[in-house]
Amino acid sequence: MAGNTFGTLFTVTTFGESHGPAIGCVIDGCPPGLSLSEADIQPELDRRKPGTSRHVTQRKEPDTVEILSGVYEGKTTGTPIALMIRNQDQRSHDYGNILDTFRPGHADYTYWQKYGIRDPRGGGRSSARLTAPVVGAAAIAKKWLKEKYGTEFIGCMSQLGEIAIPFVGWEHVPNNPFFAANPDIIPELEAYMDGLRKAGDSCGARIDVVARNVPVGLGEPLYDKLDADIAYAMMGINAVKGVEIGAGFRSVAQKGTEHGDELTPQGFSSNNAGGVLGGISTGQDITVSIAIKPTSSIRTPRQSIDRAGNPATVETFGRHDPCVGIRATPIAEAMLALVLMDHALRHRAQCGDVHVDTPQIPARAAQG
Amino acid sequence: MAGNTFGTLFTVTTFGESHGPAIGCVIDGCPPGLSLSEADIQPELDRRKPGTSRHVTQRKEPDTVEILSGVYEGKTTGTPIALMIRNQDQRSHDYGNILDTFRPGHADYTYWQKYGIRDPRGGGRSSARLTAPVVGAAAIAKKWLKEKYGTEFIGCMSQLGEIAIPFVGWEHVPNNPFFAANPDIIPELEAYMDGLRKAGDSCGARIDVVARNVPVGLGEPLYDKLDADIAYAMMGINAVKGVEIGAGFRSVAQKGTEHGDELTPQGFSSNNAGGVLGGISTGQDITVSIAIKPTSSIRTPRQSIDRAGNPATVETFGRHDPCVGIRATPIAEAMLALVLMDHALRHRAQCGDVHVDTPQIPARAAQG
Amino acid sequence: MAGNTFGTLFTVTTFGESHGPAIGCVIDGCPPGLSLSEADIQPELDRRKPGTSRHVTQRKEPDTVEILSGVYEGKTTGTPIALMIRNQDQRSHDYGNILDTFRPGHADYTYWQKYGIRDPRGGGRSSARLTAPVVGAAAIAKKWLKEKYGTEFIGCMSQLGEIAIPFVGWEHVPNNPFFAANPDIIPELEAYMDGLRKAGDSCGARIDVVARNVPVGLGEPLYDKLDADIAYAMMGINAVKGVEIGAGFRSVAQKGTEHGDELTPQGFSSNNAGGVLGGISTGQDITVSIAIKPTSSIRTPRQSIDRAGNPATVETFGRHDPCVGIRATPIAEAMLALVLMDHALRHRAQCGDVHVDTPQIPARAAQG
Amino acid sequence: MAGNTFGTLFTVTTFGESHGPAIGCVIDGCPPGLSLSEADIQPELDRRKPGTSRHVTQRKEPDTVEILSGVYEGKTTGTPIALMIRNQDQRSHDYGNILDTFRPGHADYTYWQKYGIRDPRGGGRSSARLTAPVVGAAAIAKKWLKEKYGTEFIGCMSQLGEIAIPFVGWEHVPNNPFFAANPDIIPELEAYMDGLRKAGDSCGARIDVVARNVPVGLGEPLYDKLDADIAYAMMGINAVKGVEIGAGFRSVAQKGTEHGDELTPQGFSSNNAGGVLGGISTGQDITVSIAIKPTSSIRTPRQSIDRAGNPATVETFGRHDPCVGIRATPIAEAMLALVLMDHALRHRAQCGDVHVDTPQIPARAAQG
Repeated sequence: MAGNTFGTLFTVTTFGESHGPAIGCVIDGCPPGLSLSEADIQPELDRRKPGTSRHVTQRKEPDTVEILSGVYEGKTTGTPIALMIRNQDQRSHDYGNILDTFRPGHADYTYWQKYGIRDPRGGGRSSARLTAPVVGAAAIAKKWLKEKYGTEFIGCMSQLGEIAIPFVGWEHVPNNPFFAANPDIIPELEAYMDGLRKAGDSCGARIDVVARNVPVGLGEPLYDKLDADIAYAMMGINAVKGVEIGAGFRSVAQKGTEHGDELTPQGFSSNNAGGVLGGISTGQDITVSIAIKPTSSIRTPRQSIDRAGNPATVETFGRHDPCVGIRATPIAEAMLALVLMDHALRHRAQCGDVHVDTPQIPARAAQG
Repeated sequence: MAGNTFGTLFTVTTFGESHGPAIGCVIDGCPPGLSLSEADIQPELDRRKPGTSRHVTQRKEPDTVEILSGVYEGKTTGTPIALMIRNQDQRSHDYGNILDTFRPGHADYTYWQKYGIRDPRGGGRSSARLTAPVVGAAAIAKKWLKEKYGTEFIGCMSQLGEIAIPFVGWEHVPNNPFFAANPDIIPELEAYMDGLRKAGDSCGARIDVVARNVPVGLGEPLYDKLDADIAYAMMGINAVKGVEIGAGFRSVAQKGTEHGDELTPQGFSSNNAGGVLGGISTGQDITVSIAIKPTSSIRTPRQSIDRAGNPATVETFGRHDPCVGIRATPIAEAMLALVLMDHALRHRAQCGDVHVDTPQIPARAAQG
Repeated sequence: MAGNTFGTLFTVTTFGESHGPAIGCVIDGCPPGLSLSEADIQPELDRRKPGTSRHVTQRKEPDTVEILSGVYEGKTTGTPIALMIRNQDQRSHDYGNILDTFRPGHADYTYWQKYGIRDPRGGGRSSARLTAPVVGAAAIAKKWLKEKYGTEFIGCMSQLGEIAIPFVGWEHVPNNPFFAANPDIIPELEAYMDGLRKAGDSCGARIDVVARNVPVGLGEPLYDKLDADIAYAMMGINAVKGVEIGAGFRSVAQKGTEHGDELTPQGFSSNNAGGVLGGISTGQDITVSIAIKPTSSIRTPRQSIDRAGNPATVETFGRHDPCVGIRATPIAEAMLALVLMDHALRHRAQCGDVHVDTPQIPARAAQG
Repeated sequence: MAGNTFGTLFTVTTFGESHGPAIGCVIDGCPPGLSLSEADIQPELDRRKPGTSRHVTQRKEPDTVEILSGVYEGKTTGTPIALMIRNQDQRSHDYGNILDTFRPGHADYTYWQKYGIRDPRGGGRSSARLTAPVVGAAAIAKKWLKEKYGTEFIGCMSQLGEIAIPFVGWEHVPNNPFFAANPDIIPELEAYMDGLRKAGDSCGARIDVVARNVPVGLGEPLYDKLDADIAYAMMGINAVKGVEIGAGFRSVAQKGTEHGDELTPQGFSSNNAGGVLGGISTGQDITVSIAIKPTSSIRTPRQSIDRAGNPATVETFGRHDPCVGIRATPIAEAMLALVLMDHALRHRAQCGDVHVDTPQIPARAAQG
């Protein structure tokens, strides 16, 4: 209830702060008998980790994961799987005056108001570093869903600040630091980021994620609808301010004759629904889009107050991502995977084993 | 876990189908000692009920609520409050062939896939009629929050299909059937709706809701962030496809120097955050915007399949809202109220009683 | 969290007070496709209802159940099943001074302390009448478990006040008002109860319940062990003060060589475990025994205090069970059924479908 | 839902196996601002740890706890507190044939049936070693309850195998390895245990625990009654087969005139209720008694089967407690503390802050 557990049947309980001794999580409810080792988890963590390009924070963290429990002789046993990542690069920073003031747009103000206490070390618990254990947990969910149903997760950045990124092909995503599905736009993105860094400013981003080969029938009406849980998962990622499923806000100006996806014996003819109708998966691709706000920790001086309520000017030094959206793609994929994993288990509790039998349309149909 | 309970400490468990004997809910966790009678609940239900204008379904339902438990001598006792609304207008409709086919964009396909059984009477459990018990439950939450913290909830429609509705003033909202905060645009909206009805089509809408006088410190990191729970609540409303908090998708193209709301001794200077930072309320107005898709039950013939997978044409007759967004404003307010109520109780569990002490900015500042 | 929902995947949320308009519950998570009508539920309610012999309360309640939702054309749809029982016999009683004083051994004192408000009508929410909706919900669980796994539930009274009731045979249980598995002792029990009534006193009882044909593998380590959840369910029944599984308190004086049930290719040789090892079902009969305290509402004057803390004498008039244990057998069976139902669904969420394949020993072996 | 989290608002999620790399837990919901360091936790772990006398397992584990998160500058921050204990003494044992067979009375049979996989290393997840993280978590609960309400927890062994241990005084408990409140009986207990060890057998025990200075009003009707949650917590401890609150099974033969605790302006006159009425704390001492079965891992050969279902003889070598009850007193105290902590937070969520204002009777009154 204090909000550090994600999920209901496949639960991920995380712990840790940006600059504490360790971060990690306990995963409960994993089916027994899944082959699992650190080698299944580490690649996902590596996709998210800092320091991989000049456009993200330069903090040096190998993010090496250790499995503390729940696996015996290379198989999950059905008991809790604890993952731990030791923090390595906790060197003392020049925090300037942020210990006594509040960064505009940052959680340090609300944590202090809520708890009456404040851990200023790198944002403490509110740091985006805390997405690492979740990415680790989701690697397990991804593996199980892939083996059981063939479900896969992909994502890309579709806008960086003011620059829209036209979709070219998924194969380009792993080849650039932005997770862009477009090879030609990379120089423009790099120049944009370099300009921001020089200006001491930051920008937002838009990320699209897709789940393919999704079993039909996942999602619980009325309140744990699949899309409701996806919205919850996505809005819970640091800095996210908007979530769309399928046609999203474009639905507002659509007519019913345009929006409602027709069915044929070969499958749906379009995917405005984004793979969810009435809160339950249709078997089509699940398509999600999120808005990420610009980083609040920037070098440009800003007006704020101190703890006593007096006016203060805040400048943030240290190592920060100028666009947290750049590393957000694997995180959004992870959250989507966790939601589907949880609902797969929930579905078979009430309705028995799930099936994947709906005719599919190409993944990008609704977005082309 | 089967998804019919909303909330964690202030829980609302609903039951019923559109054309069953009754719909209702059980509210658990209401603080004792609150003055309560049906007269506190009925006005909210009346704002949502069908048949109040020619632009919504003509089904005749008085939606008269009965309190079955939890109140003694006009006060809540701390025990469960059961609300029941008897369905009145369940007359047999001309469903055409929808018992054997699936309406494009409708939940009838996924319910059938999930449960292997289908209740075709007016959409069964997936009907928007099931928002009535929630609105009833939220009336209790609204009353408690108002008495305890002065918190208030308001909302309006800001777009109907292709027509944007400029904000003029909250005082106009109760005076038209669209919940529009603009008196001059009503004739245009009415003509638009009349045209849709004649065409046998439907349209979407955009709804904005605001909570004012919100206690600071509500929301649970990491996963039950206040905005995450709001996104979950909103995306769970029938037909919603997108959710924004504060600047929402506009955040993508903003710079950090623009987005981050500066603080002064008199309060925040802007409200791009929409009243939530790091998942915790700032004490500013909480501002939410949602996208509602066009109704899927339309008269225009559409391509579909029958249960055997053969091609079929579907036309939906009977009584349906041509824009479910028209009655969505009180529903969105209700969901927001339930989220805040739940988090108010959660906050005082861990941190003791909450407070409202943050300097405020005018409610519409971020939207002006 | 306010404690009116039982279970995690098969949940029963109850509402109502002894003398309010109605009592009932919402059952969520029932698998779809189960044949169900009021005729499946009413017989279980009839076993528990008041007024069936002179040894129980003379309140006249037919306890007629109405299904409000979740069933369509005689089958469960997978959506919430609401049950409602209208209270019939709420006539005004001579409560004497119990509105201002507290009965020794009664919940009226603690409800008042907890909530600062008190519903004195027949015990309000704390009345044993609130077990009726649970018995109704459990009738559904019993039906599903019987059809799916052949699981059955039986129970009997094994002690009434100071009188131990030797077990003779299950076939005798339905033939006497005490649920005694012994026909010869009935006159002695009747005389004992008549004496108590004349003396204005009450007595306790011991109830044994057994589940047969239980799937192996139900129960969740570490904390939702099957026996832990059984203990929770049983101790939650009104007036229960002790719970035993298998050998129970006899285990204390047993040696390991005596207690540990040996296995053979034909099954276990004994059942000291009561069908649970390490919190997980063995497939043997689950055997549970509970202690029920004497009724607190008695005619004999007792010392107490009033709300102001002054000394007061309390005599309770009106209609009360002189031994609440007499009607407790179907209630204890119901709670056991709900626990097994919940764990059956939980098990298949994580581990897939359950199986019943363990060699059995005769049900009474451990008790013979 | 997979059962490795204890509690609802003050949650303890544990992980680890007897012979894995580490055991530990994540505590979520701890109020912020509590002074906390390892020095507050280690003493409780030391009371439970193995190897402190010849009557318990000789495994050498210092059980040194490390706090990984949730504490900053010596205060809890309101974020999750992770505790980790590295396993030290995992040397390979002579397990004999227990990898292929099942010990009578042991969880190895049911784990294998449930999960289809088995971790034989020292009992894996089912080992009593997993109570260590819980004792650590409870040390935090105890500290908070003591500072906030003055609540204290004490316990003792009241029976060892066939030997009843008359209560003399709490001051004797820390001075002997049995947690006996009686100094004179220690030689008899030691001789009894020495005899058992020589015989290759084991025995059960009875443990009493008491909470003093308990706030009135804790507990949630109808299903999360305080005594129901205590029963759940206690029955969930390894090897527990019975739980009593207050008069427990003695209630069966009591009359209402004897059992119901009379009230006077100075407090209750007796405590048959064990501090709980209607599932809610009365403010009196909470008194609980549990039955612990004899250890299943014994040297004496016993009949069993192997995985293929063939007859087999099992003898267990290695290091085992001949009476797991000897170290159970701090564990039972811990579980009681966790239940009260959780309910203290739950109470203030719904009803605001709790109070301690009920006149008390001496702790042992009901047991003298």
